[in-house]
Amino acid sequence: MRAAARLIRLIDDGDPGAREELAILYRHSGKAHIIGFTGAPGVGKSTLVDAIIVRFRKDGKSVGVLAVDPTSPFSGGAILGDRVRMQRHFLDEGVFIRSLATRGQFGGLTRSTADAVVVLDAMGKDVIIVETVGVGQDEVDIAQNAHTTVLVTIPGMGDDIQAIKAGLMEIGDVIVVNKADREGAAKTVREMRFMLHMSMDRHLDSKWEQPIVETVANADRGIAELYEAILRHWAYLRDHSHQELQSVERSRIRKQVIDLLNEIVMRRVMDELDATSNLDDLVDQICRRETDPYHVSVDLADHFLRGAKS
Amino acid sequence: MRAAARLIRLIDDGDPGAREELAILYRHSGKAHIIGFTGAPGVGKSTLVDAIIVRFRKDGKSVGVLAVDPTSPFSGGAILGDRVRMQRHFLDEGVFIRSLATRGQFGGLTRSTADAVVVLDAMGKDVIIVETVGVGQDEVDIAQNAHTTVLVTIPGMGDDIQAIKAGLMEIGDVIVVNKADREGAAKTVREMRFMLHMSMDRHLDSKWEQPIVETVANADRGIAELYEAILRHWAYLRDHSHQELQSVERSRIRKQVIDLLNEIVMRRVMDELDATSNLDDLVDQICRRETDPYHVSVDLADHFLRGAKS
Repeated sequence: MRAAARLIRLIDDGDPGAREELAILYRHSGKAHIIGFTGAPGVGKSTLVDAIIVRFRKDGKSVGVLAVDPTSPFSGGAILGDRVRMQRHFLDEGVFIRSLATRGQFGGLTRSTADAVVVLDAMGKDVIIVETVGVGQDEVDIAQNAHTTVLVTIPGMGDDIQAIKAGLMEIGDVIVVNKADREGAAKTVREMRFMLHMSMDRHLDSKWEQPIVETVANADRGIAELYEAILRHWAYLRDHSHQELQSVERSRIRKQVIDLLNEIVMRRVMDELDATSNLDDLVDQICRRETDPYHVSVDLADHFLRGAKS
Repeated sequence: MRAAARLIRLIDDGDPGAREELAILYRHSGKAHIIGFTGAPGVGKSTLVDAIIVRFRKDGKSVGVLAVDPTSPFSGGAILGDRVRMQRHFLDEGVFIRSLATRGQFGGLTRSTADAVVVLDAMGKDVIIVETVGVGQDEVDIAQNAHTTVLVTIPGMGDDIQAIKAGLMEIGDVIVVNKADREGAAKTVREMRFMLHMSMDRHLDSKWEQPIVETVANADRGIAELYEAILRHWAYLRDHSHQELQSVERSRIRKQVIDLLNEIVMRRVMDELDATSNLDDLVDQICRRETDPYHVSVDLADHFLRGAKS
């Protein structure tokens, strides 16, 4: 466990030295059920995750949790999250909780999340829960790294939340309306059903019908149904739809390779640019409007890529 | 205006053909005051932006608005946003509103936002407002593309909001506590002041003191103060701190070049990978655990980058 913690720290720091160890661990990965929890801030994801951990532990499953916080590039948000979450499960050796807050440059956060999943998977965790804070592209990317994605929403938020719900609807294998004791819960559930209906044609290849589960996380209401829905989705993938599971696995791997490649390529490019003062000079020229970012970036791409015209 | 709308559509579609036109427009850019509005969904950003547009129009300024929606890669979220926002300013030729929803791959959304800002700037808009939905890395990146960043929050949201506030505090030149008639507003303002105080040491080079403005956007309360704070920040940069303005400009340009470079490089790499079935074969091998994503991505980087060992 201490080695895993150290490795995840290296991963979060973006240390390329972690790659050799990850390559070895990778051979032992591929067994865990990876579950993503996503949704806007303030919907109660942490409380739900907490309750679901308890269920998995009761069933004798070991659990790894990654709290991914793309909003904390500037501060200690992730550390805060760790402390809050650790309290309840602190003495339970079957639960391993870590936060990630890698700077998001060149897809760093999705890359580091995928890496940390490999570590927990190779550790032998039965279940890995990835919880994201926020609703941007990072979260969509991270959700796509899971087998089962739980999309959490609440009744009666603003217009932009509605747009988000519509946008993220399709990535949720299980939809949760939390704080379902609030006014407007029934209306929200109706809207969700309508939106699911609208997006149905995109999922013709899947026989999975996304359930909508109403919960009141801090009163432990609906947690049994949510737990059951998560298990049912995993059983569906594992036992009834090998093809779908394999396609999920392949796209997870593909994405991981592309994220790693992007980061490695851009780090090498940036290292070379930083070693010379080349970029500073170019920025000066753009500042004076002698050239523009469009010609400069194409020229740089030609310079760095093998086989491109120079 | 029709040409600008067409060009922004090309930009949002990620059409590389837009680059030549953008290069020409770029020479005419660099005059507008770029203002970013950021904050969690549901805090009332759109209403605030709306009210601020009215003030700028009263002062005879032309305004361009970009609504950036990283949550809608899967659906028509941005179109929805357009429709809602267009209503009030539809007949005002001095206001130009567009939404962006570029898929975020390889920094696409930050790239397309920067491009669209160039278009509005070259159109001669005095003020360009960039409004983001969400609180992830994309928003942080986009906010850093502005001269003046307005960070919007509201009283009494959950723990993760608190973490977000701490994390984003430093990117706000003006901090807004909206819905300030709600319970807990005074407490939130106190917390904000404390957090500002904590992060003060990071801004030793700046003499700007981030004001905290309390607003009730839908009752038009505090809007005059917010407007004044925004103008004051611009005057500070433009008239009193040329050095700071220039450093903002340089880092904006640097970021734009790196985003463009990342996208151009990775597009070329992906085009070549897609043209061969190379990546598919590699994914198969990783699936069978014959190799791993870490070795594969380093080998691919070596293959694509000029001068790297092969």
